[in-house]
Amino acid sequence: MKVSETFIPTLREVPGDAVIVSHRLMLRAALIRKLSNGLFAYLPLGLRSFRKVERIIREEMDAAGALEIKPTVVVPGELWKESGRWDSMGDALLRVKNRVGSDFVVSPTAEEAFTALVRDELSSYRQLPLTLYQINTKYRDEVRPRYGVMRGREFVMKDAYSFHTDEASLDETYQKMGRAYRRIFKRCGLTVIPVRADSGAMGGTGSEEFMVESEIGDNTLLLCKACDYAANVEKAGCKPDYTAPASVETPHVEKIDTPHVRTIEELCSFLKTDARQFIKTLIYKAVNVELDLSAAPGCAKLVQRKPAPDAPPVYPEAFFAVTIRGDLDVNEVKLAAILKAAEVVLAADTDVERITGAPVGFAGPVGLTSVPVIADETVTAMTDAVAGALAKDLHYTHVAYGRDFTPWLVTDVRTVVAGDRCPVCGGELYEKKGNELGHIFKLGYKYTKTMKVSYLDVNGKSHTPTMGCYGIGLDRTLASAIEEHHDEAGIIWPITIAPFHVIIVPIKYDGAVKAAADSITADLEKQGVEVLLDDRNERPGVKFNDADLTGIPYRVVVGDKNLAGENPRVEIKGRSEKDNRLVELKAAAEELTALVHRDLAELNQ
Amino acid sequence: MKVSETFIPTLREVPGDAVIVSHRLMLRAALIRKLSNGLFAYLPLGLRSFRKVERIIREEMDAAGALEIKPTVVVPGELWKESGRWDSMGDALLRVKNRVGSDFVVSPTAEEAFTALVRDELSSYRQLPLTLYQINTKYRDEVRPRYGVMRGREFVMKDAYSFHTDEASLDETYQKMGRAYRRIFKRCGLTVIPVRADSGAMGGTGSEEFMVESEIGDNTLLLCKACDYAANVEKAGCKPDYTAPASVETPHVEKIDTPHVRTIEELCSFLKTDARQFIKTLIYKAVNVELDLSAAPGCAKLVQRKPAPDAPPVYPEAFFAVTIRGDLDVNEVKLAAILKAAEVVLAADTDVERITGAPVGFAGPVGLTSVPVIADETVTAMTDAVAGALAKDLHYTHVAYGRDFTPWLVTDVRTVVAGDRCPVCGGELYEKKGNELGHIFKLGYKYTKTMKVSYLDVNGKSHTPTMGCYGIGLDRTLASAIEEHHDEAGIIWPITIAPFHVIIVPIKYDGAVKAAADSITADLEKQGVEVLLDDRNERPGVKFNDADLTGIPYRVVVGDKNLAGENPRVEIKGRSEKDNRLVELKAAAEELTALVHRDLAELNQ
Repeated sequence: MKVSETFIPTLREVPGDAVIVSHRLMLRAALIRKLSNGLFAYLPLGLRSFRKVERIIREEMDAAGALEIKPTVVVPGELWKESGRWDSMGDALLRVKNRVGSDFVVSPTAEEAFTALVRDELSSYRQLPLTLYQINTKYRDEVRPRYGVMRGREFVMKDAYSFHTDEASLDETYQKMGRAYRRIFKRCGLTVIPVRADSGAMGGTGSEEFMVESEIGDNTLLLCKACDYAANVEKAGCKPDYTAPASVETPHVEKIDTPHVRTIEELCSFLKTDARQFIKTLIYKAVNVELDLSAAPGCAKLVQRKPAPDAPPVYPEAFFAVTIRGDLDVNEVKLAAILKAAEVVLAADTDVERITGAPVGFAGPVGLTSVPVIADETVTAMTDAVAGALAKDLHYTHVAYGRDFTPWLVTDVRTVVAGDRCPVCGGELYEKKGNELGHIFKLGYKYTKTMKVSYLDVNGKSHTPTMGCYGIGLDRTLASAIEEHHDEAGIIWPITIAPFHVIIVPIKYDGAVKAAADSITADLEKQGVEVLLDDRNERPGVKFNDADLTGIPYRVVVGDKNLAGENPRVEIKGRSEKDNRLVELKAAAEELTALVHRDLAELNQ
Repeated sequence: MKVSETFIPTLREVPGDAVIVSHRLMLRAALIRKLSNGLFAYLPLGLRSFRKVERIIREEMDAAGALEIKPTVVVPGELWKESGRWDSMGDALLRVKNRVGSDFVVSPTAEEAFTALVRDELSSYRQLPLTLYQINTKYRDEVRPRYGVMRGREFVMKDAYSFHTDEASLDETYQKMGRAYRRIFKRCGLTVIPVRADSGAMGGTGSEEFMVESEIGDNTLLLCKACDYAANVEKAGCKPDYTAPASVETPHVEKIDTPHVRTIEELCSFLKTDARQFIKTLIYKAVNVELDLSAAPGCAKLVQRKPAPDAPPVYPEAFFAVTIRGDLDVNEVKLAAILKAAEVVLAADTDVERITGAPVGFAGPVGLTSVPVIADETVTAMTDAVAGALAKDLHYTHVAYGRDFTPWLVTDVRTVVAGDRCPVCGGELYEKKGNELGHIFKLGYKYTKTMKVSYLDVNGKSHTPTMGCYGIGLDRTLASAIEEHHDEAGIIWPITIAPFHVIIVPIKYDGAVKAAADSITADLEKQGVEVLLDDRNERPGVKFNDADLTGIPYRVVVGDKNLAGENPRVEIKGRSEKDNRLVELKAAAEELTALVHRDLAELNQ
């Protein structure tokens, strides 16, 4: 294809809001243009790459036995009300009323639509397992869309949903999808970090996120220097850095005056000790708690309600005291997961005062009965600690876990940080920022139960199938490939997703140069190599810059000088190579074809 | 692919609202399922065919030099306000407010988005002509969605937009698109009727609709029995069926009493003559009239206003008297086009009384000065006619055009009907109902002017480009192929868009039959033939019925009886053939491959 016959309006300058490399390069190389905040149009060059990502994903999904279908983008709000997400999804869900006032949703994901489709068709266990997927437009009304297509409002997602008779079958598909995802990212030239992630509001037990390292990543990852452990901070664990003593040999609890001392730092300095000696106690408010609290301290009067007719009952609001060793932070995502709560937030000062009977700063587990006490595992090793005494300007010393207080629940709510020890091998953990490209997880029965899906087993007995869910963001995958593969001059495409394989740059598209450029182009295209021929009447420098900017893997420069003489030659250069080399004109197409096929094979193998 | 590995839940019964063949068969053959009114999901088998239609369209667009891009489905309402269609589009436009109250549109078409994109990138005439297209989701909030995907709310459309420096360039692309459209429909196995259509509210001059004959068609077409003339009734012309006399030799106008006579039928019977002797006069109200009325009778006081800052000025409301020969009907689409009006409707009785000074039924052109008189061309031949006398129970006789009244405008506003004469060859016209699959038209400057698009010519002078617009509905194309190709047993796919080329039906998928079925499948797949292998443990009758229903072009039956003996054979049958024939097992794959390639070549040539 000739440059004059396509539409590649490259730019030298980009708007100031394009702060990350991929956003800047996608604008400059004319891959995308902004239509509105968080809404981008793909131009011809960008769409060629986008379609290649799409094709790779489709091939791997098909190979994994998933079946492509195409539900609508606009779906009935009724389905979202059935699942309960009409309410729980919040403002990110774009809701629409049509001309007669019916509710619709511009799909951000499609659990409901797929579950409803399968519900209507499923009768026998013989139809399972069944994995369906779509590659389709999604919309999420991001508060702050930014970073180009990396966090846009409209995007394209491949989302797959699988249905199974049992956990073993779900696990088999889950593993198969994990392998397909690894292949997809490899074929796109991406280095991903597979991490165990919290599956948050989606529910379910098994879950793996596919992350790429990114300075603007939404996620903090903890990785082990010694083994391949990787986890999202929201779920990361670590090896205990404490030992519980065999017995408690601590003096009795003593109440001491701590005037005007409220923070741990002030206490450390006041008592001349360090934070590891303190039991930090925080009061949390949790919303829509699914965990059973009927036997929990202070919860007798709490009333459950059902957010949707078939959803499990929840406590709309409940308070908890969470204790942890003073040098550590509470991980609120872990806490929410333990409580099966929609959200946890630090309680307001007035609530803290009501619950602890003291101003903020003096909470502690000893004698606290108004709310359930949840202790992080670190607290179980503390036998001579300091804690708030539930009264202004007073603390307890010599507090011993098990002797002076017994929490309602002991669990892991610790925020793991760099320097902590790997839970697998004990190696040192370090942090990276990451962006999620894909996510596979076991949804379990969340949707199939609330939306009443059933099948008959071999004996004619009715059961609810279990479900898995597998997503990849296409736009983000494309942008991440650029983040990983570029230099100061522009993009360096992995050949599998490059808009073209080869760019031919005639110094001046005329006479013998034109003839040679046309002939190489024709020979390459005959071999299935995708060629862009820069036939513009521009200075060579402009064409070279655009070739570098658009990142096409191989560049061929055709000039009068090298064509002259008995042995006409052209220059060939790989995009990431520094120097070009001369090859004979008559051998050029063959050599380039071999290079392209080699590179494609390497990534696709 | 094995049936057990895909998802083809065929049905025997379909809901009663599925009244047309394609809707019934698409449900029964498990191509689609209904998600909600006018919203359908494509299942695996349907999506395979859908993607083939998509690929054919993409190939032909690319071959015609159009460049694919991908704007968003959800677009800023601002763009629609700029073009004026935010208001003019009515309730079919799905409008959305996002979380911060900004207006968005779920695109029904994309003139605005494409024009805005080009506006931002266009600088020089060198960039023109430019044709961009997308194949993307669209939404139109149909009042009464029905007939399955034939008239759904969400659908996929290929829409292309071209930009040009002049009319000649626009015409060249328009012709190229016309050729591409003919190829697309041919390749999909569709018989289309290309008709000159009214371009209605879209404006512009050249336009061609690609129709398929359909009993449930939205359009009435007039076709010539003698030549290939075809037109939408909204725009159809005909050969004059009158001759204007050289001179008027008619007695003077005479006013006669016509008590209680209001309709033409009553007049005919009262005066004992026929409707062709009457000048029928209708009073119309037109909305948003763009035509200049500054010199028109009775219009001196009308005030123009601008619907959008850069839109041309319009008269919000104006009245007209339209006269036509008494046996004919006024074509309101033609009338609106002539007036450049958004809408024309018959005036209310009170308006008629005010304008004519008489009750409804006595309007006539003689002496009428309160509104402009528009005469259909048929009236110019009437020299001894009857017309209303602008007074209760009175008519004029001996009315002569040109002598007794001179209309403000003479034009063609006649509704052509079956039996009228072809405007090209004079042959007899007949009517058909048609459904529009595609539409190409010259938009002209409508969007480029209101949205202020400009480019610099060779001399650095600024100009506005002219524009063309070209759409095809994918869902409707697919459904129409089924409407054209089916029998009582099911679909008969044109091979180019069949979900599979060959279906292998083993009588019992076991032993030697299984081995033979697997081997034919493998051999065919090696040759690129798409095979569905019905490996289900079902009765042969069930499998045969499903094979017929899903309409796969070639069926191979593999059974023990034919495999036995020295010369093992299988049965081959084309879907539209009545009888099957036996071919040697070892020759089957080769023969089928040849048949498939022959059929593909025939449609694709």
